[in-house]
Amino acid sequence: MVSPLVSKLRDILGKRKVLDSDAELLCYSFDATPLLYHKPDVVTLVDSEEDIRLVLEFAAQEGLPVTTRGSGTGLSGGSVPVNGGILIVTTSMNRVIEIDAHDMSATVEPGVITANLHALVEAQGLFYPPDPGSMKISTIGGNVAENAGGLRGLKYGVTGDYVLSLDTYFIDGSKIRYGTKCLKDVAGYNLTKFLIGTEGTIGIFSRIVLKLIPKPKTKTTFLALYDDIVDAARTVSAIISRKVIPSTLELMDSVTINCVEDHVNIGLPRDVEALLLIETDGHPEVVREEAEIIREACTANRVRSLRIAANARESEELFTARRNALSALARVKPTTILEDITVPRPVIPEMMVTIRQAAEQYGITIGTFGHAGDGNLHPTCLTDERDKDEIHRVEQAYEVIFEKAIALGGTISGEHGTGISKAKYLPKMVGSKALEVMKRIKHAFDPENRLNPGKIFLPTER
Amino acid sequence: MVSPLVSKLRDILGKRKVLDSDAELLCYSFDATPLLYHKPDVVTLVDSEEDIRLVLEFAAQEGLPVTTRGSGTGLSGGSVPVNGGILIVTTSMNRVIEIDAHDMSATVEPGVITANLHALVEAQGLFYPPDPGSMKISTIGGNVAENAGGLRGLKYGVTGDYVLSLDTYFIDGSKIRYGTKCLKDVAGYNLTKFLIGTEGTIGIFSRIVLKLIPKPKTKTTFLALYDDIVDAARTVSAIISRKVIPSTLELMDSVTINCVEDHVNIGLPRDVEALLLIETDGHPEVVREEAEIIREACTANRVRSLRIAANARESEELFTARRNALSALARVKPTTILEDITVPRPVIPEMMVTIRQAAEQYGITIGTFGHAGDGNLHPTCLTDERDKDEIHRVEQAYEVIFEKAIALGGTISGEHGTGISKAKYLPKMVGSKALEVMKRIKHAFDPENRLNPGKIFLPTER
Repeated sequence: MVSPLVSKLRDILGKRKVLDSDAELLCYSFDATPLLYHKPDVVTLVDSEEDIRLVLEFAAQEGLPVTTRGSGTGLSGGSVPVNGGILIVTTSMNRVIEIDAHDMSATVEPGVITANLHALVEAQGLFYPPDPGSMKISTIGGNVAENAGGLRGLKYGVTGDYVLSLDTYFIDGSKIRYGTKCLKDVAGYNLTKFLIGTEGTIGIFSRIVLKLIPKPKTKTTFLALYDDIVDAARTVSAIISRKVIPSTLELMDSVTINCVEDHVNIGLPRDVEALLLIETDGHPEVVREEAEIIREACTANRVRSLRIAANARESEELFTARRNALSALARVKPTTILEDITVPRPVIPEMMVTIRQAAEQYGITIGTFGHAGDGNLHPTCLTDERDKDEIHRVEQAYEVIFEKAIALGGTISGEHGTGISKAKYLPKMVGSKALEVMKRIKHAFDPENRLNPGKIFLPTER
Repeated sequence: MVSPLVSKLRDILGKRKVLDSDAELLCYSFDATPLLYHKPDVVTLVDSEEDIRLVLEFAAQEGLPVTTRGSGTGLSGGSVPVNGGILIVTTSMNRVIEIDAHDMSATVEPGVITANLHALVEAQGLFYPPDPGSMKISTIGGNVAENAGGLRGLKYGVTGDYVLSLDTYFIDGSKIRYGTKCLKDVAGYNLTKFLIGTEGTIGIFSRIVLKLIPKPKTKTTFLALYDDIVDAARTVSAIISRKVIPSTLELMDSVTINCVEDHVNIGLPRDVEALLLIETDGHPEVVREEAEIIREACTANRVRSLRIAANARESEELFTARRNALSALARVKPTTILEDITVPRPVIPEMMVTIRQAAEQYGITIGTFGHAGDGNLHPTCLTDERDKDEIHRVEQAYEVIFEKAIALGGTISGEHGTGISKAKYLPKMVGSKALEVMKRIKHAFDPENRLNPGKIFLPTER
């Protein structure tokens, strides 16, 4: 029997775009965040701006919550409809509206897959740098909503640094466009910059203009192996303080290395304590000189061995290994809890020590990898959600880790967002006044708290 | 006789920090925006966060408007206290709190002069790229409030691209800090990104953390002369579409060239219709190759002559000439009205034709210069505010120019802000819904509209 809600929505959107079977609702009840499931009341597969508007107007009439979702690769629960209601899935809005090779911009719908955009623009000698770990599945809309980072963030910045203009629907069904193809625009408040990273709680993006840059001419990839993870962490700072900004500067600890090697089997050494994956890109002469400096910085910090990828295939293999770190870790135990702290580079060694100590103290397994070049680390706990006692200890360990990250002048999330998983740490991170300001902004846009409710802010005590 | 307002403020801040003589108020009644004067009721020279808080709390008790001002180099009236009240001048808060050469950041108070920061960081081999025309006088606080651009915006971005963290006072005297030294931070809404460019209408910055980058190793400066300004404009697009992003790509038309030559006398040719000032920076080999491509792009677009600056002094001379464009134009007639449109690069030639035609149609003199590389043009009218008829024609001409910029997918302001001068064009630029959203945000922060009232939004019709 079809509920009145579903039947009304089908009248509006057509049958094909409205899903309500138990199996379908289950498929849309989670994203990549562990321990978090909630079914929507109904799923709508929008494929036009008109569809978005119709769903929002219907939701307004019925007073229903609305949550937006792309591919569901988020790691803080941003697209999980924890209050039920209507889920808007934007993956069918996947048209590349324009690639302007002449003026270097791309105009896309929100459902375009990040890696597909990479391929399209690179074929024209252009480059869209943001490369979140999930780029082969993630959508540009989700990347903008979360202000996703990636391996190239250190040198090239994050998603938000490339967004020139957004078309955004608000909860009442109205739409604005802010921004142009121009690199500079200071007309009124910059709503585009504000909307980036609001995690689906303020608006729904329907059209996105991205800045492109020329594709770097060449690159060199290094694999640096360390007997002591603190030496690896020191190398990170040593490279930057020599005024070299690598395009990638990634760290993996021994737990991660072994899981990755189990998974992809490319011959990573199992007996090291850490590795750095380092890439410099650009003009061949620049790459050559930077490679020399990187070699010197590694040597000065007791690297065990330093290998240059012999060719593009070998380099790609190393990057694939790094991108598979999360899925490799996830194979080991039933539950993988990935965190996303970021600290200033000079204190990475101190942070690494704290992570190791917290794992020991609470008797849990944590593998750490991440974008060490920008201080963004992903301590990842391998656990089992059915083991309530262990999950409790995991929470205690992360509490220690978060406190330390904040104390070191860092943040609780570098690129995954606050969502649900980090909402309880947000007050400590930003302070009660900033939190109140954020709530005031949210209220100004969505007074009934119907757009992606339950995210960023803890449910208010009543 | 000292007013009760002044006497109370002196009790709070001390006599020295409170100015109220007619001459003093007059000095603070304008910025660099033409046709705009309004005296504050009282001026406070704050030199600490505590001072800012005390003034804001006093203003709240008395229900007075508060406007913030740095050096007053703004070009849209953002720091003119058009509703009177208390003016907070932050130029005494000019401490450089830290330059972290190791991790590449600078922490400063808002009153630090932009060029002073350049000198300090460059002495350490680092680089703070944003270089607004007024950088020798302007303050970092003002640059952040306006999201100031500059000559290096094309390659390096604008002020907002370098702001990592802000301490901000709101109208009620409360303060937040958002952001860390980390390049990535997605904890809740990014209030820093939102606050950049809000033109003093949302908060007052008391501490600013800026990202630094390594200083480019070398540079080459070109002076390209053209008999036809459209060829110069075409060269801009030709360079970019060859995938070269110069660090500077500036245009000056014949009116500007002649005024500059009158002013600084460095031997610019008076008989050309336009010149481009082009600079490429970075690694010597990159600079050498880009210089070749630039030369080829100029030649393909009928450049009359192309000269490379022989040495740093000659290059500096050319940049000084460009930076003096506004003051050179300002010497010719009593009133100089500078505008700040930005259009996509490929339509710069069309925009230049419209500017020329509008000047002819309305019988006025417009000199155009600007950051052509990012499409940001400054058509500058030389006029006399006492000639009401001519001022009326100037307004009509600018109306044509703004309409065209919007129609071409551009914006009414690339780097000067909306302030008062462009408030009446903002609704057309962003649309009524976006304007309403901006007003709602403003109201959420400042419900009594006491912080820098009269800016960005036209006074509401009652």
